[in-house]
Amino acid sequence: MSGDDSRADRFSAATEDPLDAAMRRAIAASEQVRGTTSPNPPVGCVILDADGRVVGTGATQPPGGPHAEVVALRAAGARAAGGTAVVTLEPCVHTGRTGPCADALRQAGVARVVHAVADPTARAAGGAAALRAAGIEVRDGLLAEEVSRGPLRAWLHFARTGRPHVTWKYAATLDGRSAAADGTSQWISSADSRAEVHRVRERMDAILVGTGTVAADDPHLTARDAGGELTRRRPLRVVVGDRDIAADARVLDSAAETIRVPGGPPSSVLDALADRGAVDVLLEGGPRLAGAFLEAGCIDRILAYIAPSLLGSGPAALGDAGVASLSQAWRLRIEETTMSGVDLRISAVPTW
Amino acid sequence: MSGDDSRADRFSAATEDPLDAAMRRAIAASEQVRGTTSPNPPVGCVILDADGRVVGTGATQPPGGPHAEVVALRAAGARAAGGTAVVTLEPCVHTGRTGPCADALRQAGVARVVHAVADPTARAAGGAAALRAAGIEVRDGLLAEEVSRGPLRAWLHFARTGRPHVTWKYAATLDGRSAAADGTSQWISSADSRAEVHRVRERMDAILVGTGTVAADDPHLTARDAGGELTRRRPLRVVVGDRDIAADARVLDSAAETIRVPGGPPSSVLDALADRGAVDVLLEGGPRLAGAFLEAGCIDRILAYIAPSLLGSGPAALGDAGVASLSQAWRLRIEETTMSGVDLRISAVPTW
Repeated sequence: MSGDDSRADRFSAATEDPLDAAMRRAIAASEQVRGTTSPNPPVGCVILDADGRVVGTGATQPPGGPHAEVVALRAAGARAAGGTAVVTLEPCVHTGRTGPCADALRQAGVARVVHAVADPTARAAGGAAALRAAGIEVRDGLLAEEVSRGPLRAWLHFARTGRPHVTWKYAATLDGRSAAADGTSQWISSADSRAEVHRVRERMDAILVGTGTVAADDPHLTARDAGGELTRRRPLRVVVGDRDIAADARVLDSAAETIRVPGGPPSSVLDALADRGAVDVLLEGGPRLAGAFLEAGCIDRILAYIAPSLLGSGPAALGDAGVASLSQAWRLRIEETTMSGVDLRISAVPTW
Repeated sequence: MSGDDSRADRFSAATEDPLDAAMRRAIAASEQVRGTTSPNPPVGCVILDADGRVVGTGATQPPGGPHAEVVALRAAGARAAGGTAVVTLEPCVHTGRTGPCADALRQAGVARVVHAVADPTARAAGGAAALRAAGIEVRDGLLAEEVSRGPLRAWLHFARTGRPHVTWKYAATLDGRSAAADGTSQWISSADSRAEVHRVRERMDAILVGTGTVAADDPHLTARDAGGELTRRRPLRVVVGDRDIAADARVLDSAAETIRVPGGPPSSVLDALADRGAVDVLLEGGPRLAGAFLEAGCIDRILAYIAPSLLGSGPAALGDAGVASLSQAWRLRIEETTMSGVDLRISAVPTW
């Protein structure tokens, strides 16, 4: 270990609880696999040895592959004995395509398990009880808010409701318009924001638009890296609606799989996506589709890129959402605002 | 001095340059008189004795009264000799209704003058040169950005352009609407934001609306304190346009003076206000008047209260501003975003 590492360790020890630090490492590991695990949750796990040193880190592998705990235990080997497993989700007790994680932790001789969020699914829950029954100390709730708003947000929503989590992403001017009077809309938002949207897309299971947006904007709906190359992950592209779309529409090319879903209630659109194993869905407009999803209560988060500009005319980013009077407005809570280049990025969640 | 004060002083000395601290005190003093000095600038001044102790603080008095330096020097008395004057604006050299501040500083035996912003007016500028000629050390530019964006912003704009500084304040939903489809608009923004708007109004010289807003909303356009009482300061209420307004409109009551200005180019409206000595003007809508002011380049700052709600229909906060295509959009720079209760408060300035 270099002198620098040693100083960094001392600093970290002085300023952050080692379990907090381990959970943050587990969260970071889970973020790496977001978009690759559905319908399983993107979980992260860190194994500390009996002296509190990190001896293994793991994250959920694609469906059929090992869970985070198993990956981390393999890395730790014999050093897990007497140690602590720090994991973002309560370890499972069910045998699916892989064995129960609670068993693996017991067999590895782990003395303590610390998890952030309890498993809400009937099939997999009970891990904490099984571990305690095996004489393992269990603590839950560590950085629970961070995990449940972060990497496990969509999966927890899906586990509780049976419906994919929908993030409505849009770009608009400060006065709420998504295009100018003549229809020009490229680009409302900054290059920084557009690059960020590609990073958001990459972690999604599916990207949803209506036929109207395909006709108007001919979007590609792919995730590209900073160099403009398609990312390894290729989220499913979903076009909703009954209108014909051009045979040479970019969304129909071979860059990623694309499916058509007939127009209908948003809940049935989401059911079709759930059947495809989609848990985390990005709704990318336009005003009509967003209005319909909002009215149906099918938007779980709003991610708005607000450009620092004013138009004064042109189509609004959001169309009719069934609101006639102010008292019926859809109320949100602003979770976070950050700058994205020159744009303002607002994350908000419904309060209904 | 109590033990607590002594500790606070030591802490302050350890963490902030004494001149910075004095300038911040001068800024705070100037903020207290904003809205009471036009057409003169709201200036703050702090006198430090030869040992660097604060011995006098002052701010511009209403027109005809003494300037900030004179108020602060009076408080300091003989302790100013050999000391430092810290002042937000370059001391003036002209004799108006009061004597030149540069003379007063020289006569008080001040050894050094530190100011934030140079005086851009031909009549009053030259203070720094006169002080240096008298053997006084002069330093400028201390916290200049803070002062020129803050208490002296409107006056500096007026001094440079001859036109009052216009802040367009509006409240809208996240999707940019200022009312629901049925016209209901009370209240889009939160009680916290509405209370803050009263504090903003109190420091303005004039509050501007169009006859359309008077007809639609019957606003009172007064500044009230937390208890609902009218503040001591009563900014001028200005109704722009040729339409009749109801004889019992609230804006016509005796709570503050109200003037009518005929419809016409925004620049002529502002000329009429400049003739009344107004330097700092709040434009409170509606969409048509704001669009006209924006198109005429007569908006100098935008203060948006964005409510965490979505409507999907209803009138937009901003009407036609002469923009046909995206390349013609009015570009802004976001200066600051803060939460105002549950609302998001955005301060932005034009970049054109």
